[in-house]
Amino acid sequence: MKVVVDAFGGDNAPVEIVEGAVLAVKNNKNLEVILCGKEDKIKEILRGRTERIEIVDASDVITNDDAPTEAIRHKPNSSLVVAYDILKTRDDVIGLVSAGPTGAVLAGAIMKIGRIKGISRPALAPILPTKVDGSDVIIIDSGANIDCKPINLLHFALMGSAYYSIIYNKKEPRVALLNNGAEDEKGNELAKETFPLLKNAPINFIGNKEGGDFMSGDVDVMVADGFAGNALLKGTEGAVKAVISILKRSIKSHFWSKVGYLFMGKTFKEIRERVDVQRKHAGSPLLGCKKLVVKNHGSCDRVNIQASIEQTIKLHNNNLNQRIEEAIASLSEKI
Amino acid sequence: MKVVVDAFGGDNAPVEIVEGAVLAVKNNKNLEVILCGKEDKIKEILRGRTERIEIVDASDVITNDDAPTEAIRHKPNSSLVVAYDILKTRDDVIGLVSAGPTGAVLAGAIMKIGRIKGISRPALAPILPTKVDGSDVIIIDSGANIDCKPINLLHFALMGSAYYSIIYNKKEPRVALLNNGAEDEKGNELAKETFPLLKNAPINFIGNKEGGDFMSGDVDVMVADGFAGNALLKGTEGAVKAVISILKRSIKSHFWSKVGYLFMGKTFKEIRERVDVQRKHAGSPLLGCKKLVVKNHGSCDRVNIQASIEQTIKLHNNNLNQRIEEAIASLSEKI
Repeated sequence: MKVVVDAFGGDNAPVEIVEGAVLAVKNNKNLEVILCGKEDKIKEILRGRTERIEIVDASDVITNDDAPTEAIRHKPNSSLVVAYDILKTRDDVIGLVSAGPTGAVLAGAIMKIGRIKGISRPALAPILPTKVDGSDVIIIDSGANIDCKPINLLHFALMGSAYYSIIYNKKEPRVALLNNGAEDEKGNELAKETFPLLKNAPINFIGNKEGGDFMSGDVDVMVADGFAGNALLKGTEGAVKAVISILKRSIKSHFWSKVGYLFMGKTFKEIRERVDVQRKHAGSPLLGCKKLVVKNHGSCDRVNIQASIEQTIKLHNNNLNQRIEEAIASLSEKI
Repeated sequence: MKVVVDAFGGDNAPVEIVEGAVLAVKNNKNLEVILCGKEDKIKEILRGRTERIEIVDASDVITNDDAPTEAIRHKPNSSLVVAYDILKTRDDVIGLVSAGPTGAVLAGAIMKIGRIKGISRPALAPILPTKVDGSDVIIIDSGANIDCKPINLLHFALMGSAYYSIIYNKKEPRVALLNNGAEDEKGNELAKETFPLLKNAPINFIGNKEGGDFMSGDVDVMVADGFAGNALLKGTEGAVKAVISILKRSIKSHFWSKVGYLFMGKTFKEIRERVDVQRKHAGSPLLGCKKLVVKNHGSCDRVNIQASIEQTIKLHNNNLNQRIEEAIASLSEKI
């Protein structure tokens, strides 16, 4: 089983990306990784650890300053485009992992790989913790699709449900529509038109939920247009960081609080593990593409990259795309 | 100076509302409060403390189950409608305070009081803490106006800036547009069309900001349509609650953490005071109405109601509505 990795995407590339690939290969006996990027640099980092690792040279890099579509078109030797070409042309490669610029990863997926038949727009669905132990929530879309139509949100719901059911092994994830109130008739025009579509879709639709329900543990898959979804996602992450920052500063400024802190090691470790959104994070697949594309955060490290590669394997083994295709097909039968 | 109060609006009405009025009157020598609601009940709570408190009997109550516009039309004897009639007809009454259903308070303001000339839609602008000491942020709109046009957001920005500058005595509050990225050209159609309007407005516009900047202390006034604004506001509040809930549970489940907690009284008191969004909260004025209307949360208590009444006085003394009118006028001059 082969996964292609953009070794020069992300703030910590290439070291963390290459090391992440090494970790993944060590941990998965049947895995082979193809690393795309400057060959000499990659070899330098690998220091001979080349078992089940192939290098494909790519001299160029796409950065945040590049216009996404332009970059895919005019930087054919960039690590990302070379990786996409491999994903496109080689049947034995099951997926691609990149921590490069979101826009370019998206543009590349659409231009090089294409969408699953019937899916209007691919979407990103990052994972967040909730206040309930062991219960995470995903938001789809979270910023890939800014202006949306009801049909887009219906597809997000189907894809999010299939994705969540695989990664958490949960048969009927609870899917909710982000809204400004819980009542059925609430919402802006988009939400109002989307509601009946979700109600009739082959998912466990639990109705409208507010932003305040996002981390409550009552929702598995929150469906939103990319603009409101991005506001919710970033607002939530920012609020978590703000509370922890206030807490830290307060502890530092009171002598007895500092003393108390010494006793609370376990609690602060738990907090870090529970709410640190990025720790061990596998990134998010670009749901709705013909082949698996997993995007990790620009600031991700080797553990994140390993997780991304392993998630690609898991999604492949559990037939994510086939499930999405079936859900879409069952829709057309209904109509 | 007279303020009219809907004594039967809110979950804790009438006791907390009436007691809040008593606190406000005690604390402000020139204040008179008019309480609207069931006279016998109010008298029972007042137990003779009637100095500078007038009671106007209103036998009916508007609840969350009432359709807002219908309720204003067909419940003329409700405490809210009676209060609005007093605000409308009596020149010596400077403002109204209610913790009743948001929809009804909004509908009453528009139907009974009317908008400031040139303002397309009144808006609610609740206050949240940031991670920076002493620096709060407001979001406008937060859910009163679900489908918006660029002109609405321009008005929100002007009103929010005027409001913030009064309550925090800050000359040029930093106004930002909620967006899915910081770059000027980012956004959904609404945000893209709004950006140039804000750039040319007589405010301190600092550009696009993401949801993650909301509690950063870098923004004073966050401008958004009511749908995305609501997602951000509720998501932020929910995340704060979730982190604190995880923290509490973790402390309870580890012996040494419980010991540490005993030393950290000051820190936990600080956290509660800083992030408990509702504590001492004055609610939010319905910005853009011809007369001052301050809406508090349904679950507010006497301290909140006192704060709402005192905020009404402060906004009146600092000529909020006149400032808004001037900002609108300066716009038309430009066009």
